[in-house]
This record gives sequence, C-alpha cells and structure tokens, in this order.
Amino acid sequence: MNLNIALLPGDGVGPEVLAQAVKCLQAVEETFNHNFVFKEASIGAIAIDKKGASLPESTLNLCKEADAVLLGAIGHPKYDTNPNSPIRPEQGLLKLRKELGLFANIRPVIAHSALVDKSPLKKEVVSGTDFVIYRELTGGIYFGEKKLNEEGTVASDLCEYSEEEISRVAHLAFKAAKNRRGKLTLVDKANVLESSRLWRKVVAKIGESYPDVVLDYLFVDNAAMQIILKPTQFDVILTENMFGDIISDEGSVIGGSIGLLASASIGEESALFEPIHGSYPQAMGLDIANPIASILSVAMLLEHFGLIDESLAVRNAVDKSLKKEIVTPDLKHDSQYGTNQVGDFIAHNIVDIE
Amino acid sequence: MNLNIALLPGDGVGPEVLAQAVKCLQAVEETFNHNFVFKEASIGAIAIDKKGASLPESTLNLCKEADAVLLGAIGHPKYDTNPNSPIRPEQGLLKLRKELGLFANIRPVIAHSALVDKSPLKKEVVSGTDFVIYRELTGGIYFGEKKLNEEGTVASDLCEYSEEEISRVAHLAFKAAKNRRGKLTLVDKANVLESSRLWRKVVAKIGESYPDVVLDYLFVDNAAMQIILKPTQFDVILTENMFGDIISDEGSVIGGSIGLLASASIGEESALFEPIHGSYPQAMGLDIANPIASILSVAMLLEHFGLIDESLAVRNAVDKSLKKEIVTPDLKHDSQYGTNQVGDFIAHNIVDIE
Ligand SMILES: [Mg+2]
Ligand SMILES: [Mg+2]
Repeated sequence: MNLNIALLPGDGVGPEVLAQAVKCLQAVEETFNHNFVFKEASIGAIAIDKKGASLPESTLNLCKEADAVLLGAIGHPKYDTNPNSPIRPEQGLLKLRKELGLFANIRPVIAHSALVDKSPLKKEVVSGTDFVIYRELTGGIYFGEKKLNEEGTVASDLCEYSEEEISRVAHLAFKAAKNRRGKLTLVDKANVLESSRLWRKVVAKIGESYPDVVLDYLFVDNAAMQIILKPTQFDVILTENMFGDIISDEGSVIGGSIGLLASASIGEESALFEPIHGSYPQAMGLDIANPIASILSVAMLLEHFGLIDESLAVRNAVDKSLKKEIVTPDLKHDSQYGTNQVGDFIAHNIVDIE
Repeated sequence: MNLNIALLPGDGVGPEVLAQAVKCLQAVEETFNHNFVFKEASIGAIAIDKKGASLPESTLNLCKEADAVLLGAIGHPKYDTNPNSPIRPEQGLLKLRKELGLFANIRPVIAHSALVDKSPLKKEVVSGTDFVIYRELTGGIYFGEKKLNEEGTVASDLCEYSEEEISRVAHLAFKAAKNRRGKLTLVDKANVLESSRLWRKVVAKIGESYPDVVLDYLFVDNAAMQIILKPTQFDVILTENMFGDIISDEGSVIGGSIGLLASASIGEESALFEPIHGSYPQAMGLDIANPIASILSVAMLLEHFGLIDESLAVRNAVDKSLKKEIVTPDLKHDSQYGTNQVGDFIAHNIVDIE
C-alpha cells in the first residue's frame, strides 16, 4: 500500500517519541512491502516560535494532502502563564481537527497484564479490561453557542446535536463493535436531556442494520461508576463530545500508565493519530520519554487502513517489550533503557516476526 | 433543641432503614436532652398506590412545615417498565426538591478503614479518603431549555447559570471547607464553557471573603481522573449540577459500599436527608437492608443544625458497628445481624457514650 503520512513532531518530547513511531512504520514498510512517504511540518509552540502561528498554513496544507497525520505532542510552559493569550500551542491542534473535519475520537482502554500493578484499581477488577471509546468530537456543548449577558451575571452554553452528527460516528462505532466482541454501549443522559434522547433514537435505529451487535444504554453518571467497578464489561462505548471527554480521561488512568495510550481522530477524508500524553517538556532531550503510546498510535493508523497483520505485528512487538521489561523508567524505575533503545527494540521485533 | 422532622419512609427497604434512623435520632434526643417531633407521610410508589400521586399535597405541606425531612428510599419496579409513564415514583422526589428550593446537594465520600478491602481501588490509593462534594442541584443543563425541531432531527439543551445560583451554593461550600481542612476545589470546564468561566469568576470573588480557605481549580475531565488516582487530595469539591452528578456517582463507589453513603439537599428554609442507595425492592421485608447510610443521613441532619457532638456520637456508634462487624450481610457475607439488630446496636451505642 502507498501511504502519504504527514509527520507533526510538535513540542517537548513530541519529536523524540515520534521518531520511534516512524522507526516502527519503516519496519512495517520493509517487512510487509509497503511504500510509506513521510513529510514533516511544524505545529504547536515550535510553530509559533518559527512561523508565528500554532498551525501554519503550510502545515495545514500538508495534512490535507496526506492520507494520515501522525502527531507527537503539543504544548510548552512558556505559553501556559496566560491562558487567555490569543495564540496558544493547543489551538493548533483544535484548528487542525476542525479543518480536517475529524468528527470521531477513538480511545482504546487496555489493561496490559505487565502493568496491572501500576493501576489504581485492584488487579482482580482491572485485569482483562479491553474496550474502546468512540467520542463525537466536533459537536455538542463544547461547540454550541455561548452567551454572556451584558452585566456579566448570566452565562450559557448550548448543547446541540443533529441526526447527521450522531449517525456518522455511530456507524464507525457499530463497525468497530462488529469486528470486536459485538457489544456497543451508548452512554448518555436520556432521562434528562433532549439531545441524549435524540442520540438514543438515532443509535437504536442504526443498530437495526447491525444485527450482530448487541446495543445497550448507560446513563453517564452510572457509566462513571461502572468504569471503576467493572471495566471488563465494556467492548465499545459510544458517546457525545463532553461525556466522552470525561469518561475517556477517567478510563485513561485505569490501565496503569498514560504512557501507553494512543488515540485516533477520524474524519471523512483525513485521520490523525497521536499519543494521549502531553509534551512533557521537563523530559525533553533526556531520552526518557516513553515512546509506546506514539508507537501504538502507529498500530491504530495501520488498522485504520485495514492493515490488520501489520497492526498486530506492532502490538505484539510492544507486548514483548513490556514482558521483557525493555521499557523507559516511568514503567520500571531502575530501567536502563532510553526512548531510543525501546523504539529500536520494538522496531526490530516488528521485522523479526517469529 | 426543638426540631420538627418529617419522615418519608417511601418504597422498598425505605421504611426499614428509616426506622433505624429514627431509633438513632431518639437515642440522641434522650442522651442530649432535645425534643424531636416526628410526623410521617407517604411519597413515591406507595403514594401513587394510596393517593394517586408520587408527591401528595399533604406530604408536601408536611415537609414545608417541618424543619427537616428524612427520606427512606423511592422507587418500585412495577413503574420501571415504562420510563415515559407520566406518573413515576422518582418524580415525587424531584418535585419535592424543587418545591422546597433545595439548591445544594452534599455528598460525603469517605473510605471507612473497615471497608477498604471492598473498594475497587487499591488500599494504598483509597485509604484516608475523606472529602465532600457540593453540587448545585436546581440549575444548569438538567433544567435549561430543551428543544427538538419539528422533523425530530435536531435536539438541544441549554446550560445556563446566574451569579446568584452559583454564589449561594459556593458560600455553603466555602463554609464547609473552613470547618474542615480548608481546601476547596472548583470543578469546571472553564477552558471551553462560558458558564464555567462565570463559575470561576464568581467563586474566585467569593473566595476573597474566606481567606482561610485555599481555592484551586480542576477541569472536570481531569477531576474524573484524579478521583481515582489520588482521592485523598480532596477536601471540599464544588461543582455545577451535571458535573456533580457524574463525579459524585464516580466518588460513591470508591469507598467500598454504597450502603454507607448519605446525602443532604439544602435550601434556604428546608433541608432533606437521605441515603444515596435506592429502594432495593428485592430485599424489602427481609431484614437484610443496610441501615447505616440512613443512619449517617441522621448525622448529616444533626450537623446541619449545629449539633456537632450529637452528630459525632452517631458517627462514632456507626464506626463501632463497622469495627465490631455488627453489620448486615452486604458488608460481611456470613453476618448473622439483620437491619433491626444493626440499628439497635448503633442506637444503644449513642446512648452509652464511653
Ligand atoms: Mg480531556
Ligand atoms: Mg446520578
């Protein structure tokens, strides 16, 4: 397969972890005879410094032309002192998502057996957890009309959803459930919210075209409990933007390490893959950042293009590094391995499939 | 002190657990020389059966005249088959809260040392957890304008807050923090929502009048993580209605037993106290329901009226029952003690202060 991949290293440890992800993509390219073309561009704080914009026009164009975008990380503390500053590194990513029409965010939550000891949850609760959250990413209250009266004493935000916005992300979630364990849980607040009732109606209707998928419903407050009480009950969770923000962040900590979590943001014609961790500027240049989340974002990229064996090769190589404890110090405090060595180990294991 | 207390036993195990709560109030009355007058009325499914309304007029009037309302539980499965039924038991409680103007919901989250083994969180994570959530209860998106277009394809809900709505619950939370460990965390989404920015502005301003209280801020998605990662970091959490719904339910499971959690709903002139568990109809009449949450709702009632020693006597008696394992089978599967015996033990220990 020919793929044009835009590389956006970004800030902090972004370039270091992205370099490992690229190594792994090159290992896949070589092993499975694909042709990946990489083009790099700047985004975030470094783009502000160099070009005066967190998302330069040239970066946006490169991303639009690419088949997929692979992002490192965004953010620098020097821009954090003033949260109202009109130019902020994170805005580059928000603008990119919007410009590329990335309406679905996909977040796997997996409890790797090598890491259950690091989870805040008890081993018997978290072991075996393997679910994925499909979050609507461009609608709902985060993007609805905002109002503040003249006196500054009454403020409001509108949560609005259309059938179309719901159905496009719902189809993605149903397809995922069909290829997984066949269960989809819609998280909403349909006992109170009109928008949630529309979600239920639309999703129930779409569910009829996926007879292999069992659809159930959970109120968001109950979901926030169930993710802690029995995370193994979930296969695919589908939800609106804000609920997805809350429960996917809640879910992100139960696996034991945020350094292992990747996410994908999908649109009609574009797709962006990234680790969920931030730019971690304190670790920049120290060769200690965990590259696994970035490498797993590559696995999601490969899956997205139907390269299932390739994706599995990446995941298996990651599992091997975890089992053999070829990991960065965040996962094993006395580890001697750095970012580069972990990346090399995983890339080599993609090539040497046993 | 003279107190008129309205008793609403409600459905399922409500009457059984409420009876134990009343025993404890009578033990307090006797030990500390107070004068409590109890008047009982019906609410919920039983009120529908008897009087055709989940909140009969006579019940509402009794509650309005009382100094405080003590509720058992509400709900019966025979009304669950049709969630759109115009008459539902739970609506009695929603209407009561509204009629009494109960604008603040208070939910303590405590990890009792006798129960940490039952928490889904690891012992070292949850031990020592002791915080309280102040949730705004009558505003925000649950009560904002709801719209559905004629074609039924676009739906919306409005989240609106006024300075006044924010400030009355904020003052309660600051006062609580002042009497506790002096820390208040506002949970919002001020990086995205206009209503959250108003919350921040109003709460920061009010904070100036509470110099003993350290105020910090947490985005709701981060809060959902932090409650699992490090629940001991919190003292008082203040938040809007829906965020409070989600994180207080999340918080409710980390203590190890929902059978121990009480809540208070406070208004200008009324206050209602209840266990957070439901009516548990399968256990009705079996003398197995855990009465501790209902008894702890009595402790909250006493605290509300400034009866601090009295409240402490109740809490200490509860702690003794947990330590001596004089508990219902939900906490100790081979326990021989029933609802009544646990209630008796706790009430006796209120009288016999060592
Ligand atoms: Mg988030
Ligand atoms: Mg709730």
